[in-house]
Amino acid sequence: MTLHDCTTCSSDACATEMLRIADEQNIETAWHRHAAQQPQCGFGSSGLCCRICMKGPCRIDPFGNGPRFGICGADADTIVARHMVRMMAAGAASHSEHGRHIALALRHLADGHLDDYAIRDEAKMLAVAARLGVATDGRALMDVVRDVADLTLGDFQNQDEKKPCTWLAATLPEKRLKKLGDLGILPHNIDATVAQTMSRTHIGCDSDPTNLVLGGLRVALTDLDGMVLATELSDALFGTPKPVATSSNLGVLKVDAVNVAVNGHNPILSDVICQVAADLEAEAIAAGATAGINIVGVCCTGNEVMMRHGIPLATNYLSQELPILTGALEAMVLDVQCIMPSLPRIAECFHTVVVTTDPRNKIKGATHVDFSETKAVETAKTILRMAIAAYGRRDKNRVNIPKLAQRTIAGFSTEAIVAALTAVDAADPLKPVIDNVVNGNIQGIVLFGGCNNTKTMQDASYFRIATELARRNVLVLATGCAAGALAKSGLMTPEATEKYAGEGLKAVSRAIGEAAGLGGPLPLVLHMGSCVDNSRAVILATALANKLGVDLSDLPVVVSAPEAMSEKAVAIGTWAVTIGFPTHLGTVPPVVGSETVTRLVTETAKELIGGHFIVETDPAIAADKLFAAIQERRRGLGL
Amino acid sequence: MTLHDCTTCSSDACATEMLRIADEQNIETAWHRHAAQQPQCGFGSSGLCCRICMKGPCRIDPFGNGPRFGICGADADTIVARHMVRMMAAGAASHSEHGRHIALALRHLADGHLDDYAIRDEAKMLAVAARLGVATDGRALMDVVRDVADLTLGDFQNQDEKKPCTWLAATLPEKRLKKLGDLGILPHNIDATVAQTMSRTHIGCDSDPTNLVLGGLRVALTDLDGMVLATELSDALFGTPKPVATSSNLGVLKVDAVNVAVNGHNPILSDVICQVAADLEAEAIAAGATAGINIVGVCCTGNEVMMRHGIPLATNYLSQELPILTGALEAMVLDVQCIMPSLPRIAECFHTVVVTTDPRNKIKGATHVDFSETKAVETAKTILRMAIAAYGRRDKNRVNIPKLAQRTIAGFSTEAIVAALTAVDAADPLKPVIDNVVNGNIQGIVLFGGCNNTKTMQDASYFRIATELARRNVLVLATGCAAGALAKSGLMTPEATEKYAGEGLKAVSRAIGEAAGLGGPLPLVLHMGSCVDNSRAVILATALANKLGVDLSDLPVVVSAPEAMSEKAVAIGTWAVTIGFPTHLGTVPPVVGSETVTRLVTETAKELIGGHFIVETDPAIAADKLFAAIQERRRGLGL
Repeated sequence: MTLHDCTTCSSDACATEMLRIADEQNIETAWHRHAAQQPQCGFGSSGLCCRICMKGPCRIDPFGNGPRFGICGADADTIVARHMVRMMAAGAASHSEHGRHIALALRHLADGHLDDYAIRDEAKMLAVAARLGVATDGRALMDVVRDVADLTLGDFQNQDEKKPCTWLAATLPEKRLKKLGDLGILPHNIDATVAQTMSRTHIGCDSDPTNLVLGGLRVALTDLDGMVLATELSDALFGTPKPVATSSNLGVLKVDAVNVAVNGHNPILSDVICQVAADLEAEAIAAGATAGINIVGVCCTGNEVMMRHGIPLATNYLSQELPILTGALEAMVLDVQCIMPSLPRIAECFHTVVVTTDPRNKIKGATHVDFSETKAVETAKTILRMAIAAYGRRDKNRVNIPKLAQRTIAGFSTEAIVAALTAVDAADPLKPVIDNVVNGNIQGIVLFGGCNNTKTMQDASYFRIATELARRNVLVLATGCAAGALAKSGLMTPEATEKYAGEGLKAVSRAIGEAAGLGGPLPLVLHMGSCVDNSRAVILATALANKLGVDLSDLPVVVSAPEAMSEKAVAIGTWAVTIGFPTHLGTVPPVVGSETVTRLVTETAKELIGGHFIVETDPAIAADKLFAAIQERRRGLGL
Repeated sequence: MTLHDCTTCSSDACATEMLRIADEQNIETAWHRHAAQQPQCGFGSSGLCCRICMKGPCRIDPFGNGPRFGICGADADTIVARHMVRMMAAGAASHSEHGRHIALALRHLADGHLDDYAIRDEAKMLAVAARLGVATDGRALMDVVRDVADLTLGDFQNQDEKKPCTWLAATLPEKRLKKLGDLGILPHNIDATVAQTMSRTHIGCDSDPTNLVLGGLRVALTDLDGMVLATELSDALFGTPKPVATSSNLGVLKVDAVNVAVNGHNPILSDVICQVAADLEAEAIAAGATAGINIVGVCCTGNEVMMRHGIPLATNYLSQELPILTGALEAMVLDVQCIMPSLPRIAECFHTVVVTTDPRNKIKGATHVDFSETKAVETAKTILRMAIAAYGRRDKNRVNIPKLAQRTIAGFSTEAIVAALTAVDAADPLKPVIDNVVNGNIQGIVLFGGCNNTKTMQDASYFRIATELARRNVLVLATGCAAGALAKSGLMTPEATEKYAGEGLKAVSRAIGEAAGLGGPLPLVLHMGSCVDNSRAVILATALANKLGVDLSDLPVVVSAPEAMSEKAVAIGTWAVTIGFPTHLGTVPPVVGSETVTRLVTETAKELIGGHFIVETDPAIAADKLFAAIQERRRGLGL
């Protein structure tokens, strides 16, 4: 099967170039599989299919001509709500597992069991300790680390439902915490809440859609908890990102280098790979790769190493198969999440080694090299040597590296943003932002997050909505595959600010950029990190809310996920709504089979918690709706 | 819609009688909804539908003429394995949540915060403490309780993956623990393992079917852990069951009583209802109910109160709507799990009050009375008074109570069985069992567990397989809805032993029954409790294995779930296989879409862990296969 018109698949020029090669060489990609899956089941798409027990599958007829109830008696509302809530639980479990991994690594580091790691950002470690109420004065750093790790692990252990998760309590504004507590949706324990969500959605348990959705909000908040702790502790361990100039898209692969892509989400191995690559440079050159070892990133592991090491980003989720098609990729090193099981099948057509490293994330056909932090450097070297060996098997006649490598300024952690603002007003760094929001130079803030989804043209909506909002003077932040899309689109450059920003935003951007010594405006889109780093935007928003003495739901801050795809995205979107942000989805979640659930999350939520979902597949209209939500918030603040 | 022939729906005469009334009165039951759902989706039935991300739904064509891969690249093996493993996680979460609830209640009791509970079986509490290694000598009981509760909660908290769950380690034989440890599937923490199972099945994570299934075995073992702790602590709190004569089926409802059904799984409220009913007897009589208050059980809450209080069992899962159709049920009081969301809709046609009590398990249309252990007696009384009030609204002309109330001997906890055996050999209670297994009077043991499922005729296979195996001198144990089915079928009586048991089994049964002062043989089927009480059989089997110095996988013990339906049943079946038992399923689980997964669980498992699944929908053939598995084990032991 070939694609009829691959220019409709993606707005990424490298992707369309590689898809032509895929068609020529008869290689199946995600887009080919998407085409083969059409038409997709309408019951599943609308959430009206239940496979929770073995009496089923049961399906509700959305047109009212067939069954209204599953065999157990569950109706459309219950079936839709249970499925959505389980998606949130799975998303929360995933982000939090990433967080647990980092917390356990810190604990082992504090106990002296990890030789290959260190606290790379001691100031951040101490700041985190202070936020959590851990004493730091006169204490050995590792004692502080141990206490922080234990407090963090407490968020996976606490059995007192009245005591909220430590990290959430240390992150959200008081007003928001009170509201969530009053609604009974402030979680006490990540693992327990995930398990309780699975339990309450078991056959014959919770069937009230409102109660189920409230339970969903609770588990989605554990996603935020897991995310904050993962990000903050990763910064302490690997360094807090600072602005860094690098590049994005498949042109970052080098014809004369041993090209190694790191793909997945958790930086705990990939960060070490970046560190040790230099040690093996000579071996690569000896193997004939005159340009040595070239590490590139894919998906959110790509974002992690881009932010901290300036490693170029090869691509984002949906096009993760395509670096292999260049014929110039020696190895793809995988950790966890959003990794296509098809990678080894595509690699078989080339010389690429696909390496899985997490014992709970294996792929048929991949080579598994078990990774543990106690032998991080050794594992990283083993894998890099596999890549060097593969270089010798590369078929030079099949090398097709697209020319495009888009300049990208990444690394806008909250700390980096505050540092830039400090250059404008050292005494009161947030004042320039607030003043400009008040005077209208900045109308509001939009955070782009989420994935790629074959249901939309890859990356296209990101570009369209971001430029539309920037033109209307909305400050643009991005994480995850949204960041990947906007990086590849060239929007993470000062040039994009000059080209697309409205006059107010441009003026502010120039003032900050110049004060911070960037020699020009800030990039149009500020790259805040991987999808787990959405917490950075929450910390920034909380700082603004606290300074203004308002709740998050009062701020002119909106969220957009034009290509929401994964269960993690469902969890992120849900907590974004739950902490008070209007949140756009550009793909339709499987809730439309229930008017009740749809109304709950798109309308009732607004009254109850301030945030709500805006489902809109047309990017131009989505931009209008997001801008309207910002204006509504501005009016609420009297602006 | 009416049922064409309700005699094919259930082998329970009361059920078919009530289904005729349902048809006459145009009331929709589970069987009507089952008929309306036909035909059911073949993709879902075979496990070939994936809705894990929002690129989907994706479906694999089982005939090879359509898509072989989902959009992400997952194949049939991955899709089937992920779905099954998530079912196991949900089952484990559910049983364990029940266990956590009991453990937390014990903790609060030890801290003096619960006035309405006490340690009803101090000897069991101390025995449990000893098993867990908690010191008891010279200590105040509540200090022991606190330590046991904390150790138990540790199974939800421990972050050291190398340290196995405390209860599992205290329950399974050493040889089995070693095997499970060597395979890396001995879990360390219930909640964490559930969350990790959700995480590893997120899009782009584990896609290797073998690795996924091994992960499934690990999470299924947390189900056993949660189950053992729930049962053992419930016994300490509410009393360890002893043989008790009572009755089963809808004839247990009384025309002149305020009939109150308790339905669900967790005894923490229903046990209190049983205790306080006597206090409100006068109020019921004053309301005109000359026979006072009549508590009856449904599903596993029914089993809990039947075992401990001799409360009669109205019915099991699939027929839970039917007590309302008698027109004589004043209230149905619900806790958690396997409760049909249709109950309030049916109750609307009558005077019945449907009461939900768990804040995480609400049903649209039911009356919610929030239950907490700190006000248990007060809540129980409130609910009973709602039932008394409803009695006044009963329409006497619509009362249709079937005549059948089958005599039932229940209450065969492990302790009760050992006590009966002690009457035969006080010095060595297990010797009579082992001697008779060796001499062939007892060929083996079968444990019936699991649910009802509309895909089979209700209860019929239970009767058929149980009598077939008993005739061949297999000792029959039962829990959960299996126990309900076999109780209603009259097999929990000494008369059934006389009628159906083979000569060897009959002789042993008589000897034990008479020595124990029962005045006749043991019942043909020993009622071991609710589905969470499957742990009792494990404890019994472990005692036998330890005495023989063999592993569980060497014993001539098999498990049968002819109507497996819920995710909990999937979890139970899986741990039964994992600890070494051949396990029959009479309904086809959604794995047949993957030859690899099917082979893993039905064949490879046997080599790897000793147990395996036997999927067989024909009860006569199932009996043959189970007996053959018993014979194979006997040969292995040289018998």
